[in-house]
Amino acid sequence: MEQRIGLLGCGTVGGGVIELMRRRKQRLQSLTGWEPIIARVLVRDVHKERSVSLAEDMLTNDPDVVLGDASIRIIIETIGGIEPARTFILEAIARGKHVITANKDLIALCGEEILEAADAAGVTVLYEAAVGGAIPLIRPLQESLTANAISDLKGIVNGTTNYILSKMTETGADFDEVLKEAQDLGYAESDPSSDVDGLDAARKLTILASIAFYTRVSLSDVEVTGIRKITARDIAYAHELGSVIKLLAVGTERDGALTLHVRPTLIPKSHPLAHVSGSYNALFVRGDAAGDLMFFGRGAGALPTASAVVGDAIEVLKTMRQPQNGGYAPHPRPHKPVDQERAESASHYIRLSANDQPGVFAKIAGVFGDHGVSMETVLQKRVAAHSAEIVIVTHDVHARHLRAALKQLEAHPDVTTIHCIMPVERSVNA
Amino acid sequence: MEQRIGLLGCGTVGGGVIELMRRRKQRLQSLTGWEPIIARVLVRDVHKERSVSLAEDMLTNDPDVVLGDASIRIIIETIGGIEPARTFILEAIARGKHVITANKDLIALCGEEILEAADAAGVTVLYEAAVGGAIPLIRPLQESLTANAISDLKGIVNGTTNYILSKMTETGADFDEVLKEAQDLGYAESDPSSDVDGLDAARKLTILASIAFYTRVSLSDVEVTGIRKITARDIAYAHELGSVIKLLAVGTERDGALTLHVRPTLIPKSHPLAHVSGSYNALFVRGDAAGDLMFFGRGAGALPTASAVVGDAIEVLKTMRQPQNGGYAPHPRPHKPVDQERAESASHYIRLSANDQPGVFAKIAGVFGDHGVSMETVLQKRVAAHSAEIVIVTHDVHARHLRAALKQLEAHPDVTTIHCIMPVERSVNA
Repeated sequence: MEQRIGLLGCGTVGGGVIELMRRRKQRLQSLTGWEPIIARVLVRDVHKERSVSLAEDMLTNDPDVVLGDASIRIIIETIGGIEPARTFILEAIARGKHVITANKDLIALCGEEILEAADAAGVTVLYEAAVGGAIPLIRPLQESLTANAISDLKGIVNGTTNYILSKMTETGADFDEVLKEAQDLGYAESDPSSDVDGLDAARKLTILASIAFYTRVSLSDVEVTGIRKITARDIAYAHELGSVIKLLAVGTERDGALTLHVRPTLIPKSHPLAHVSGSYNALFVRGDAAGDLMFFGRGAGALPTASAVVGDAIEVLKTMRQPQNGGYAPHPRPHKPVDQERAESASHYIRLSANDQPGVFAKIAGVFGDHGVSMETVLQKRVAAHSAEIVIVTHDVHARHLRAALKQLEAHPDVTTIHCIMPVERSVNA
Repeated sequence: MEQRIGLLGCGTVGGGVIELMRRRKQRLQSLTGWEPIIARVLVRDVHKERSVSLAEDMLTNDPDVVLGDASIRIIIETIGGIEPARTFILEAIARGKHVITANKDLIALCGEEILEAADAAGVTVLYEAAVGGAIPLIRPLQESLTANAISDLKGIVNGTTNYILSKMTETGADFDEVLKEAQDLGYAESDPSSDVDGLDAARKLTILASIAFYTRVSLSDVEVTGIRKITARDIAYAHELGSVIKLLAVGTERDGALTLHVRPTLIPKSHPLAHVSGSYNALFVRGDAAGDLMFFGRGAGALPTASAVVGDAIEVLKTMRQPQNGGYAPHPRPHKPVDQERAESASHYIRLSANDQPGVFAKIAGVFGDHGVSMETVLQKRVAAHSAEIVIVTHDVHARHLRAALKQLEAHPDVTTIHCIMPVERSVNA
C-alpha cells in the first residue's frame, strides 16, 4: 500500500533523500510493509534545473499544496534555517502529520516547542540528521544508551572547522589562508562566522546535551570560543607536545549540574578524537555503565545526511503499521542548572610573548605559582630581538585560579601579549 | 504499574544488570511508564555468596519457577553458551515472553531458530549486548543505517586478542609470554583457543554480517585465522611500516556476493581502527549513502554489557505500552552466496626466511614477478649466519595470484620458511 510523503525543499539534502529513497525502494517496502512515495515537493522555483529528475506535477511553490494534502501523512523538511521551516513544521504537526527534519538550527532553538506540539498531536518528530550527518547519535543516545547516566560528551561536530584545523596541521599554513582555500572549494561559506566562531557546534551541543543529560539545555547556556585565533604556531607547538588542536563541543554533568563549552582544545595523539580529521565528525560519550564510547563518520553531504533522514523515515513508517495510539506519555525532564564554574580542573596550554630579559621567566613562573598553578611543560623560543615566546602546559588547574593568574599576567609589564589559552584533553586509558 | 522480569543467570553480567536496573529505577519508570521489577533469578546454587544483595525468595535453581510464572513477561538471559540457554529461551518464547540476551554464541549458532520462533509467537527478542558489549551496533545497523547498502564491515570485536596484540606492541614481548600474563590477570581464559584462534570474533561477525548485509550468514561461511603465529618481530616490522597489527573481522558484499574473514591484519596508524587498543572493541562500517562510520567502546565487562541489556529492556518495556499486535511481518531476506574468491585485491605483508646468498633475493622477486605480484616495500635483515629475513609488502594483489606465488616459494630451495602472511589495510581518506 502506498504511503505518500511531502518533501519540503529540494536542495542538496532534499535531492539526496529522493535519490536514496529510489535506490532503496524495494527494501523500504519489505522492511515497513508500505510503498513510500514522494508525492509532492515544495520548492521556491518550480522551473529550476535539478540534479534529480522529478515529474513536473510533483513540484509546487505553494506550501498549502503539500501541507494541505490530507493523503500525505509524512513530511520531510530539508529547507534549513528557522523560518519558514518552523511554521511549516508546526502546521504539519497540527494537521496530524509525522515530521522528519535535518534542521539543527530549528531543533536547537525551537526543539522544545516542536516536540511539545508533536506530543500534543500524537505524532512523531525525528531529527537524527540534525547532528553528525550520517552518524547515528540521537537514537543511540535516546535508546541504546538510556540505561546510562551520561557524564561527558565531547564532540567534533563541525566539519568546516575540522577541515580548516586539519589543513593547518598538514600544511603549516595559517588560519586566514586555509579559510580562503576552504571557501574557494565550497567547504566554508562566504560568511564563515557561524562555523569558525563555534555557533554551529554550540547548536549541535545544545541538542546532544538535552538528550544525553536528560534535560533541556538552551543555546545561551553554552560558552563559545571559535578558532579564528589559532595560528600555525599553536598547531606546531601542539605537535611538539604530542597533540593536535580540535574544536571540541564539551558537555559534562557532575552532581546534577552541567557545564557546556565549545572551544579549541589540545588532544593527545593517543586519544581517539585526535584522528578525526577533514570533514569527519565524531562524538565521544562517557556513561556510568557503558564507559567510554565513540561514534565517528561523515558529518555532512547530500547522501550521508539522506542516510539519516531515510533511516528516520523507515522508523516512522514502521510505527505507522501499528494502530495510532499517540506517542509515549511525555515524561518529566528534570531541570538541571548550568554551572560553568563547576568545570573540573584541567591541564591548559598557554602561549604568550614576553620581554626576553634575564629573570622574566622566573617572574612569570612566580605569578603562576602565587595562584597555585603548577607547570608541566615549558617551551621557550626567542622569536625576535628582545621578545621571547613562551608556551606553558600546566598541570590540572581550576579555571578560577588560572583566570586569576592570567589576569595578573595581562597587566604584567614584562608580558607583551597572551596569544592563546586552550584546555588540554587527557588521554583515554585503554 | 509493575512489570515483572525473570533473570536467568546471576554471574558477572547478571549481577551488572541487577545493579544497573537499581541505579536507573526512576528513569526506567519515567521513560517506559512501567515499574520493572526483577522478580525471579535462576541460579545454579541459591546459597552462593554474590556481589549484589538479593532477597532470598527471589533466587531459585528451578527453571520452571521462572519460566512457568505467567506474571513474568520479560526474560533476561545471561547464562551464556548454547545449552541450557537455548532451551530456556525457546521455552520463554513459546510461553509468550519477550527475551533479552547477551549470548553471542547462541545467536551466532541458533539465531535463525530463535528469531523465527519469536516471530511466530509475536514476541520480541533483542541481543544488543551479544556483540561489542556497550557499543550500540545491532540497533544502529538495524535501524539508523537501514537506508544503506552496506558494503564493508571491519571489526575489532574480541577484547582478549586486542589486549594481547596491544601488549605485544607496547612491550615487544612475544605471544606466549603476553598470553600467560593475560591469563594471570583474568583477561584470557585458561583455554584461550576460542579467543586467540579467532572463533569468538567469527561468531560475532556472523551476527553483524547477517544484519548489515540483510541476509543470513552461518559460522561455517567465515574463514578464520587466529593470532598464535604473530611474533614480536612481525609487530616490530609492522611498526617500521607505519602500521599496527589487529585481529580484524571483515565482511564485504560486492555484486550480491559476500566474503567473510577473521584474520590478523596490518592497519596503518592513520586509520581510526589502529587506535583501538586494550580491551576496547570497534566496528568500521561503509554504506553507500552514509560513507565511512566507526563505533568504538568497551566490548565486555559487567556494567558495559548491562548497559546494552538494560537498553534493550527499556525498548521492550516501551513496546509493551502499546497494544500487543505481534511483531512486524517477517520480511524475506534474500540468500546471498559467500564467495571468498571474490575478495578484492589487497596489499599483503609477507615475512619469510631464506638463504643469505648472492642472487637469492632476485630469485624470490622473480617468483613474485612471474605471478604478477609487484612489491611496494622490502625490508631485508640478516638474522643468523647464512639466513636472511625478508619482509615484503606487495602492491594490491589478488589472493589467487598471491597464493600461486607463495606455493612456488614454499617449494623453493632457497626459501627456508614463510613465517607470516597478512593483508594490509588501506588508509581512510578523510
